[in-house]
Amino acid sequence: MPDSVQTHAAPNPQPQDAFRIPRFAGLPTFMRLPMVESPVGIDIGLVGVPFDGGTTNRAGARHGPREMRNASSLMRRVHHPSGVAPYDLARIADLGDSPVNPIDVLDSLRLITGFFGTLKAAGTIPVTAGGDHLISLPILRALAADGPVGMIHFDSHSDTNDRYFGDNRYTHGTPFRRAVEEGLLDPKRVVQIGIRGSLGTANDFDFARAAGFRIVFIEEFAERRPEEIMDEARAIVGDGPVYISFDVDGIDPSQTPGTGTPEIGGYTTAEAQRMVRKLAGLNIVGADVVEVSPPFDIGNMTSLVGATLMFELMCVIAGNMKR
Amino acid sequence: MPDSVQTHAAPNPQPQDAFRIPRFAGLPTFMRLPMVESPVGIDIGLVGVPFDGGTTNRAGARHGPREMRNASSLMRRVHHPSGVAPYDLARIADLGDSPVNPIDVLDSLRLITGFFGTLKAAGTIPVTAGGDHLISLPILRALAADGPVGMIHFDSHSDTNDRYFGDNRYTHGTPFRRAVEEGLLDPKRVVQIGIRGSLGTANDFDFARAAGFRIVFIEEFAERRPEEIMDEARAIVGDGPVYISFDVDGIDPSQTPGTGTPEIGGYTTAEAQRMVRKLAGLNIVGADVVEVSPPFDIGNMTSLVGATLMFELMCVIAGNMKR
Amino acid sequence: MPDSVQTHAAPNPQPQDAFRIPRFAGLPTFMRLPMVESPVGIDIGLVGVPFDGGTTNRAGARHGPREMRNASSLMRRVHHPSGVAPYDLARIADLGDSPVNPIDVLDSLRLITGFFGTLKAAGTIPVTAGGDHLISLPILRALAADGPVGMIHFDSHSDTNDRYFGDNRYTHGTPFRRAVEEGLLDPKRVVQIGIRGSLGTANDFDFARAAGFRIVFIEEFAERRPEEIMDEARAIVGDGPVYISFDVDGIDPSQTPGTGTPEIGGYTTAEAQRMVRKLAGLNIVGADVVEVSPPFDIGNMTSLVGATLMFELMCVIAGNMKR
Amino acid sequence: MPDSVQTHAAPNPQPQDAFRIPRFAGLPTFMRLPMVESPVGIDIGLVGVPFDGGTTNRAGARHGPREMRNASSLMRRVHHPSGVAPYDLARIADLGDSPVNPIDVLDSLRLITGFFGTLKAAGTIPVTAGGDHLISLPILRALAADGPVGMIHFDSHSDTNDRYFGDNRYTHGTPFRRAVEEGLLDPKRVVQIGIRGSLGTANDFDFARAAGFRIVFIEEFAERRPEEIMDEARAIVGDGPVYISFDVDGIDPSQTPGTGTPEIGGYTTAEAQRMVRKLAGLNIVGADVVEVSPPFDIGNMTSLVGATLMFELMCVIAGNMKR
Amino acid sequence: MPDSVQTHAAPNPQPQDAFRIPRFAGLPTFMRLPMVESPVGIDIGLVGVPFDGGTTNRAGARHGPREMRNASSLMRRVHHPSGVAPYDLARIADLGDSPVNPIDVLDSLRLITGFFGTLKAAGTIPVTAGGDHLISLPILRALAADGPVGMIHFDSHSDTNDRYFGDNRYTHGTPFRRAVEEGLLDPKRVVQIGIRGSLGTANDFDFARAAGFRIVFIEEFAERRPEEIMDEARAIVGDGPVYISFDVDGIDPSQTPGTGTPEIGGYTTAEAQRMVRKLAGLNIVGADVVEVSPPFDIGNMTSLVGATLMFELMCVIAGNMKR
Amino acid sequence: MPDSVQTHAAPNPQPQDAFRIPRFAGLPTFMRLPMVESPVGIDIGLVGVPFDGGTTNRAGARHGPREMRNASSLMRRVHHPSGVAPYDLARIADLGDSPVNPIDVLDSLRLITGFFGTLKAAGTIPVTAGGDHLISLPILRALAADGPVGMIHFDSHSDTNDRYFGDNRYTHGTPFRRAVEEGLLDPKRVVQIGIRGSLGTANDFDFARAAGFRIVFIEEFAERRPEEIMDEARAIVGDGPVYISFDVDGIDPSQTPGTGTPEIGGYTTAEAQRMVRKLAGLNIVGADVVEVSPPFDIGNMTSLVGATLMFELMCVIAGNMKR
Repeated sequence: MPDSVQTHAAPNPQPQDAFRIPRFAGLPTFMRLPMVESPVGIDIGLVGVPFDGGTTNRAGARHGPREMRNASSLMRRVHHPSGVAPYDLARIADLGDSPVNPIDVLDSLRLITGFFGTLKAAGTIPVTAGGDHLISLPILRALAADGPVGMIHFDSHSDTNDRYFGDNRYTHGTPFRRAVEEGLLDPKRVVQIGIRGSLGTANDFDFARAAGFRIVFIEEFAERRPEEIMDEARAIVGDGPVYISFDVDGIDPSQTPGTGTPEIGGYTTAEAQRMVRKLAGLNIVGADVVEVSPPFDIGNMTSLVGATLMFELMCVIAGNMKR
Repeated sequence: MPDSVQTHAAPNPQPQDAFRIPRFAGLPTFMRLPMVESPVGIDIGLVGVPFDGGTTNRAGARHGPREMRNASSLMRRVHHPSGVAPYDLARIADLGDSPVNPIDVLDSLRLITGFFGTLKAAGTIPVTAGGDHLISLPILRALAADGPVGMIHFDSHSDTNDRYFGDNRYTHGTPFRRAVEEGLLDPKRVVQIGIRGSLGTANDFDFARAAGFRIVFIEEFAERRPEEIMDEARAIVGDGPVYISFDVDGIDPSQTPGTGTPEIGGYTTAEAQRMVRKLAGLNIVGADVVEVSPPFDIGNMTSLVGATLMFELMCVIAGNMKR
Repeated sequence: MPDSVQTHAAPNPQPQDAFRIPRFAGLPTFMRLPMVESPVGIDIGLVGVPFDGGTTNRAGARHGPREMRNASSLMRRVHHPSGVAPYDLARIADLGDSPVNPIDVLDSLRLITGFFGTLKAAGTIPVTAGGDHLISLPILRALAADGPVGMIHFDSHSDTNDRYFGDNRYTHGTPFRRAVEEGLLDPKRVVQIGIRGSLGTANDFDFARAAGFRIVFIEEFAERRPEEIMDEARAIVGDGPVYISFDVDGIDPSQTPGTGTPEIGGYTTAEAQRMVRKLAGLNIVGADVVEVSPPFDIGNMTSLVGATLMFELMCVIAGNMKR
Repeated sequence: MPDSVQTHAAPNPQPQDAFRIPRFAGLPTFMRLPMVESPVGIDIGLVGVPFDGGTTNRAGARHGPREMRNASSLMRRVHHPSGVAPYDLARIADLGDSPVNPIDVLDSLRLITGFFGTLKAAGTIPVTAGGDHLISLPILRALAADGPVGMIHFDSHSDTNDRYFGDNRYTHGTPFRRAVEEGLLDPKRVVQIGIRGSLGTANDFDFARAAGFRIVFIEEFAERRPEEIMDEARAIVGDGPVYISFDVDGIDPSQTPGTGTPEIGGYTTAEAQRMVRKLAGLNIVGADVVEVSPPFDIGNMTSLVGATLMFELMCVIAGNMKR
Repeated sequence: MPDSVQTHAAPNPQPQDAFRIPRFAGLPTFMRLPMVESPVGIDIGLVGVPFDGGTTNRAGARHGPREMRNASSLMRRVHHPSGVAPYDLARIADLGDSPVNPIDVLDSLRLITGFFGTLKAAGTIPVTAGGDHLISLPILRALAADGPVGMIHFDSHSDTNDRYFGDNRYTHGTPFRRAVEEGLLDPKRVVQIGIRGSLGTANDFDFARAAGFRIVFIEEFAERRPEEIMDEARAIVGDGPVYISFDVDGIDPSQTPGTGTPEIGGYTTAEAQRMVRKLAGLNIVGADVVEVSPPFDIGNMTSLVGATLMFELMCVIAGNMKR
Repeated sequence: MPDSVQTHAAPNPQPQDAFRIPRFAGLPTFMRLPMVESPVGIDIGLVGVPFDGGTTNRAGARHGPREMRNASSLMRRVHHPSGVAPYDLARIADLGDSPVNPIDVLDSLRLITGFFGTLKAAGTIPVTAGGDHLISLPILRALAADGPVGMIHFDSHSDTNDRYFGDNRYTHGTPFRRAVEEGLLDPKRVVQIGIRGSLGTANDFDFARAAGFRIVFIEEFAERRPEEIMDEARAIVGDGPVYISFDVDGIDPSQTPGTGTPEIGGYTTAEAQRMVRKLAGLNIVGADVVEVSPPFDIGNMTSLVGATLMFELMCVIAGNMKR
């Protein structure tokens, strides 16, 4: 395949050529892209947030970025169904990991917000590998600094609990309650898809409903086509800025076993791909793939799903940059 | 979450509060409920039968109760789709494990029947974690002591073989032939769902068919909605007493790999949940989840499915107790 | 089950009787059939090709035949949906493994072609356990020695690349371009089903399309019933000789994790079974199940899928032999 | 074995009889002993501290108590080399888990100290299953409330670092510096055995040495018999109260792979047993086994080592109670 | 390596040549030797006994023969330290598996004794892959039919318990009490090496000691060279017929994790090899390697140890046949 | 920890500071050092050679460099027993992976020699992560271009076979016969330590012995102290240039299970460390750690051993640079 890499436009960063350097060779940057230190001039930044200090049960998502990078070596250059060639359309790079403090939640929140503030300042759209779901809060603090954003949220949990273990307000079960309270999310422009699992109390969804979230429970999901649900979601979030948050436990745990709070009966990766592809054209300000927990993974199955979802999200965002 | 546990009615046993005691802490009783020694006064008893002496190939289901208890720590308090709050509606407890004899099949059958006889005498409905499928026979001997019951049976195998290895009548492939012969099952009120896999002989289903079982092969299942199939099953079992037996190998082995006799091409856990939920209102005298074999499991995936099915069955039965 | 094995017609080879010899006992030949040295007199030969020297990333398929044999002990004697009792209809045996050279690709190609030439000479139809996908090329060189054949090809990749790593023409990504170039495949009678995954370049399918392959991408697959797709495939390959090649990465990696190039979003094993069953009546000259890589497998899940697909293919071919 | 359990003195709690109830049955309390809620009247309390919030790299020790309980089902009743029958000599029970707060380090330290204060008040000697090594600090705050204690410390790390990640004083790398600073340990009566691994700086041991710890590096260990080293350790700690802390990473990671900071080249479990047995007769106020991290374990190997070490420590302490 | 296989004397069975047929190819017979149906004319028979019905806790040893066969493909042709070329010295073959009945202990005992009786009648010395340790009893019933034999027994347990679970006399904890009672073993010529682990009661060894067994506990083992211990063992068993029984749980569980009753602190595989090699010249009537339990194994580590011990034992016995 | 990294001499590359950036964060370069593209100015180059095309049985070592890099994040900055602070003494960096061709052995040999030729030209001493053992040959072709070197070789195999599979001269069993034939090794200055395992023929060591290699079989190793053996080895290799080759299968497979050709009964990692440390002061021209095969590894145990051995070798070489 002598004509592969060289034909790409020179200025954009390109992945290593798998026809010359085998996929198992070299450093596992995201998508085998160059790692750069500054977001300046980068359109889409692939970023890790290796933090799981908000996890109340089975942690391990701190190892998610490293293993999603590892698995992402299997991603190639072009998104077939859409025809998007992301590296032709956008300057994309691995921007490394956000600083975190593994033994201090509040310090970590500050560090993460600071890191993403730099991306926002540079005009770089982040596609983030978590980390547990608490990381979405400090990311939103950076990205929604100018005003609330909408959100399409794939998950089996609403993550709008209030407190745990006494008076703890910052856990991976509370980010979106905090984000609403802090004015980071416009609750009328929030859609949650795939919610399921047993509840702590019958009132678990009271906050989300009162705030105005649209919750698509898995039972509703099972009755409709993914595309239909996404059409509704697109109508709800509209043209304004929107954040995409993908918790891999939205997917069935047979496909994403490496996660801290698995709930059986989820959607498939194929359905997830169909939904993500329907995000094309939205005004996406950032995206994350969270709750990949390698110590609980088997055969790196979940890391591969996470890396593929990052690729899909990256292609959607790059496709928006088509001229 | 100051309003969670304390608001429950005092007399009913309650799980430990996960907002105060993390899910990984404490002893893994079923659903983190209290373990009690006597079934007296208990409406629904969660029970283990750690026996796999009827297994003709890959054993290990003896370890099922322990690992399903372990996985059940992830279950919370309320069944979302139905709104059933089981611990508000019924007195539910972990009743421990039935005595068994790991090296003597016939002694085990006696011990198990004795244990379940006590539950029946106390009016306690058992939801049992197996064990291999042979355990359904001694359970039925206790529960159907007064007369035959119907059965809805989820499985990839009919389990109506006659003999193995010479003249052995009691294996995990024979319980329901024995149960019919012994007058424990009313064969006209038996439905088997998900049957598939290669056959030993072309006559494998002769006994079941002659007896009057309704067998829904996986090929028929694939053509119909789970709810439709369950409507038919409900009509067949009617208002009389019915036993529910769920062999996890009915589900696809990618979702329940930890089982002794996997057959590819099964239904999904989501379909299983939809079917179990359609059991609401039936006159259920007991239920089991069998053939979870932890030594063959990966990432405790199958134990989680088993524990969740126990939760689902428990909620159906508790829902029947609504006043 | 005293009447099981003995009632079969004497001359045909029969699997060991699982009612007398447990499935975990004895040597793991394919389907617990006798292993014979010569194909003469054998209608269907189950064969291993333990070669993965064409693998450009994650190898291990050389161990596929051994582990598929191991898993095939779970197969019984009769195909339930079709009623085919293969060992009554055909003389079927394990013919052992083709010779290979693990450190020399070209020598392996020669050795494999030689081995399958002997089968062809004997009139034996091979059902092969790979090995990586490159092995289909030397098999076709033997089976299509008299003229091009059609092919129904289940896979996530088209495997029609040209060269890798300089000028290497023989890898598991190139067999079907070579087969067309060498006149082994009639490209107008080739159907590929399940193709997906990111592409190396936007032109990845140019060769296949120009040659006339019918490619059913996974997105199209998701919109149609498997039976519909197979009806079209049957029309395309017609009555002429056809080869069946099943790369297990066509299936979703949650069901076939043990493979070198997993792509999320695949079809299910149940859909695979439905498709394979629609091959009945075609003029099948041979079939393979490839890219089972045990070192990457978990819980032997993929080996079981591979062994079951071999059983399904064998039953289809035996069913054609019904008089 | 009809004479087994019943011959034991009635008042002492006894493990379940494995000749009647198989080891895989029932709840996995420590050593299959009764779980009791209050330490009053209990001589030796087996306790879990499911906390790993001090872990700076690979966490998971929060799951240690549950899996060590699980593995401890393999322990029987009598310590052969010493002849100690612990349940004849002492009242021993599973006292459950200390409360912890998985997302708040300082709150956890308070909760743990409170829990162990109750044991101390009751005169119960704890044998604790961690948790990461930070838990030894709050335990010492309770047990050394009356004055500093000595310590024999098995580990590959000295755990006397000062701060991490800015100004964080409480991690699993700092407990024994804090314990010295707080007057909980008498540094002249502290022995550390098995220290090894690469260092952060050449000054890593300055604090410990200046304070007066006796450090037995693994290189010295390799040159001497374990018994010799323990004779010296016994002389150093003398007759005063002494705490035993066993970090399983002191042992070679081929025997304790399930730990967060493995260092190759450690001592064997047999050597560990020989050392623990030499603790007999010391004035032991408590003991812990820490850093068992089940998500990183393989085949529960490390949990079994941890459970066995707890049994060995319990027998040493019970042996001291011989009249 | 053109001069390898062909130079061997024609009449003796030979393993497949790994310089021509890779080790991963072909059927996994023991040592890649031919499988033959009759022991007649075979000097040393490699045999499987896939039975674990005597296991009181963690079963799985029924799968031992298959996986030890699989692992034995790594064995080559010549024993380096002794220079023994077994296939030059003796006719050795894989004789397949003994018949067993997985759900009937007593029937299995009968079947196994029958099978080994045939070997004894043919003058074939068996080297057996278990199976749990109960299988040594029916083997001894065949091999010691003419009178009691001595035994060198490597194990962590004495296996001389009396009864379990009521009145059950036949479990993997009782074979050698039964063998003494039945006059199969001469208790004055029995040596047990490596015994350790916690005891059920202080009287656990009373039977063995009263009978006259020489027990080498692991504590004594640790103080002496393996060769010294074996010199004593050789003196004890003398020139009379002796059976060798190797329970892999004698070895440390970090080297043989795949076993049902692991006890930490065992000897190493290197020490095991040194001991086995000291058996040269004894009048060995048979040998077994038992308690390899593949479902609990990790990375086939234990199967490899088991297969290597079989090779070592086979070489010792073949070495005795040197002229 | 403001005083940690910054105090190091500015010009030398330094690992990331683990007191600020957690070990699980960031890209897994070797030892968390900077990756640089050119060897110019680098004293010691850490390099990967992801090639296993010479493996005749169980491959996977191609994935070794990636996973050894991953595991090397656990290495800190100072070698405690020697006091060597390598990054103070030498300019050390990750130089990335050598180019390889996964499907062409001869092309790979050329590419590897070319890559290491560049290092030699720059005066950079390579410490290499393999790859299978064949890679030592092309490395020696570069490093011994000026004349033969000595070698200290840790392994369970002599790797001096001649041919495999017909006439194949280049496999992981043949590199050191080729190296002698090509004049790259001075056979009188070669020491092999740990050799063991069954042999293909009684003549397996004829070449090595005739050439003059000193072979320390494991039986001899067991009788002597590692330091003694190394004193002899040092005398043999003398002051001339010497290459160090460490095949992790020299170590016992319970400590390095992730390797292609495990042989039980090896030395321990502690013994390996003691031997490597005795290399100090030798005129080392390069070193490799080979045959780490991640697909066969469990819990990354072998990768950690491999990474630690690289650290040890690097420290020895850096220690030689002390002024």
